[in-house]
Amino acid sequence: MRAEILSIGDELLIGQTINTNASWLGQECSKIGIQIVQVTTISDEKQLIKEAVDAAFLRSDVVLVTGGLGPTKDDITKYTLCEYFDSELEVHLPTLQKIEAFFAERKRPMLEVNIRQAELPKKCEILENRYGTAAGMWFTQNDRVLISMPGVPYEMKGIMLEEVFPRIKERFVLKAMYHKTILTQGLGESFLAEAIKDWENEVRAAGLGLAYLPSPGMVKLRLSSYQGIARKEEINAYFTVLEDRFPQYIYGTEEDTLPSVLGKILINNKNTIGTVESCTGGALAKSIVSVAGSSAYFQGSILTYSNDLKKKLVHVSSDNLEKFGAVSQQVVEQMAVNGRELLGVDWCISTSGVAGPEGGSEEKPVGTIWIAIASKEKVFSKQFNFGNNRERNIEMTVLTALNLVRCKILGILSEKN
Amino acid sequence: MRAEILSIGDELLIGQTINTNASWLGQECSKIGIQIVQVTTISDEKQLIKEAVDAAFLRSDVVLVTGGLGPTKDDITKYTLCEYFDSELEVHLPTLQKIEAFFAERKRPMLEVNIRQAELPKKCEILENRYGTAAGMWFTQNDRVLISMPGVPYEMKGIMLEEVFPRIKERFVLKAMYHKTILTQGLGESFLAEAIKDWENEVRAAGLGLAYLPSPGMVKLRLSSYQGIARKEEINAYFTVLEDRFPQYIYGTEEDTLPSVLGKILINNKNTIGTVESCTGGALAKSIVSVAGSSAYFQGSILTYSNDLKKKLVHVSSDNLEKFGAVSQQVVEQMAVNGRELLGVDWCISTSGVAGPEGGSEEKPVGTIWIAIASKEKVFSKQFNFGNNRERNIEMTVLTALNLVRCKILGILSEKN
Repeated sequence: MRAEILSIGDELLIGQTINTNASWLGQECSKIGIQIVQVTTISDEKQLIKEAVDAAFLRSDVVLVTGGLGPTKDDITKYTLCEYFDSELEVHLPTLQKIEAFFAERKRPMLEVNIRQAELPKKCEILENRYGTAAGMWFTQNDRVLISMPGVPYEMKGIMLEEVFPRIKERFVLKAMYHKTILTQGLGESFLAEAIKDWENEVRAAGLGLAYLPSPGMVKLRLSSYQGIARKEEINAYFTVLEDRFPQYIYGTEEDTLPSVLGKILINNKNTIGTVESCTGGALAKSIVSVAGSSAYFQGSILTYSNDLKKKLVHVSSDNLEKFGAVSQQVVEQMAVNGRELLGVDWCISTSGVAGPEGGSEEKPVGTIWIAIASKEKVFSKQFNFGNNRERNIEMTVLTALNLVRCKILGILSEKN
Repeated sequence: MRAEILSIGDELLIGQTINTNASWLGQECSKIGIQIVQVTTISDEKQLIKEAVDAAFLRSDVVLVTGGLGPTKDDITKYTLCEYFDSELEVHLPTLQKIEAFFAERKRPMLEVNIRQAELPKKCEILENRYGTAAGMWFTQNDRVLISMPGVPYEMKGIMLEEVFPRIKERFVLKAMYHKTILTQGLGESFLAEAIKDWENEVRAAGLGLAYLPSPGMVKLRLSSYQGIARKEEINAYFTVLEDRFPQYIYGTEEDTLPSVLGKILINNKNTIGTVESCTGGALAKSIVSVAGSSAYFQGSILTYSNDLKKKLVHVSSDNLEKFGAVSQQVVEQMAVNGRELLGVDWCISTSGVAGPEGGSEEKPVGTIWIAIASKEKVFSKQFNFGNNRERNIEMTVLTALNLVRCKILGILSEKN
């Protein structure tokens, strides 16, 4: 089965929006054995859309179209496809009811343009959009399929996962693929590759595919079999070997996140957690709270960005601040220890560092970060340097701190800490 | 002049790499009046590349090709283009010398594959790559131009800026384009469209392009002129009309962000700010701190996720918590008022709500959010409902709170508050 993506929108062509929809679709399709042969991006123009669909149908069985389904005048995809497939619009009642409920829930008036979103082509299967008002559409012509979805990423993803993939699996014969992904934190891509060199040679010799998928502060490792689920056990066994060797780096699999993994550990251990943050300014707490149900273990945090609040709210001593500075082992440990008492939690993480771009010195250049973790028994702290990018420093500090506290709670010791 | 982009690389199709080259090219081209009419992404296959070039030459005067110029076996763009343009390879001495110098400088051995990178088609103009070993190529056929560049972003950007744009400006007559973007918060796309309907009709009648660019919680409005900078004043005037009518929604232009705009206002007013957060769990503080230099006005925050900490840290009364619940006007106002004192700031924002997915009730369904803003003089609060997605609830609360405090500081009143 060959598929391709047709992305519609001027904002993509002029580079105002990056086409992350195409890369997400490429990833998800390749996972289940759908080969994407082309991605085409064009502007919201009727003639261009029709020509692009013609061309796509010459190459591919399935065309995934994103964009141009909004309620405003420049959104013409629905009208164009209706013409292309020689259909006409009619009100789709379930969609109208959904739209009415959507606005009623939000206590907002429904406009004429919103009602018009419920007018959909007769000749298509309607794909429910649980996240917005623009329904997806599934057109079939001869043996070709065209699927139209809104360009808003979370709406498109919802429709793909809930409506499109199930139908594709039902109606097409797909290549048997099996993938498993493990998630690592703490080693950059090239260091990780060096550390697992012999393991990598083994899995490649066994005819499995290995991909490194790096993102800031993390590397995902994906093993793929082209003989499908048959090699599942073998892949699991290869990963178990890695997990035994590097428990300090490997924190989860597939859709796990560091905060969700940490949350499960805290719930299992009936432990609570809090943070006292300086340079991360709430980013660490935000990350912990991103997990649904985190109120079971997260009580709260104190963000002490200024030295005054470090003294006033978590009783860091003026002495330590003067002698060692805010970015120091002494201060970050006091923040964690005192914060643990004040917040009444089992574990307290604290951060203090120079996120940049200003504020660096010879002794403490931009990127110098201290992280401390206090438990009832003791306090542990460690210094890092993540470079000179402010955003990246904050992000790396958050991921590193979450992974450190995970290791501490689980009693995992690395050679370095 | 019409141009298009041809991106070559399997890693783009399977979504391992996001096509940021295409968006950068789109931005830079549209700035100088080159209209990108299509972006096409295909895999490293000879036949596909030739077909894609054929198709592109039917549509466009200039085809910008990225990718497939590396030294490894899967990089076939150069060989394919050499065949396509009926040329042959020969060693290009300046490029060979550059490659030799490149490896000498890095004290790394030069391999056979690297020498082969100096073999370039006779029938093209060589575009110097100052950042790597793969030269760019400029092919002319009849009145069409094809430019081939490596896919490594900073190499491609260097060649575009230093070699390609100067030649294009010299050889083509470009349309004069001018864009201006304003940023809005607080109205969804369709409500915004409804609110500015008459204005939209006017700008369209004046022959200007208008685009709505929505992202969660925000809509960007872009006006475009195809007569270039000549209509700059006119576009500014149209936007001034909108700003005067909707100061509560319009917070900035172009690359502004709500936290950066708020930061400038706070600095101008010599004001400080802090937050007391429940449902946003640090997301609001994180957003404020995302701005470099925010320590000038951000002191810190108190995150009171649990009721216990609401009482203990910011002295919310047990009475209010029992009578009205944590998600109530009474509690959120107490949080803001007491937090302002404790943090010693001019403005304090507080949040309390049901982010979901659990915790909703008949009376307070998931998505019910209270935001309060306390200043020395008074406290203002407002209830919202942002729907049932946890992540979106947190994001919407942050953007709404930042825009509300912006309006309060500037003394902007909307009909609703």
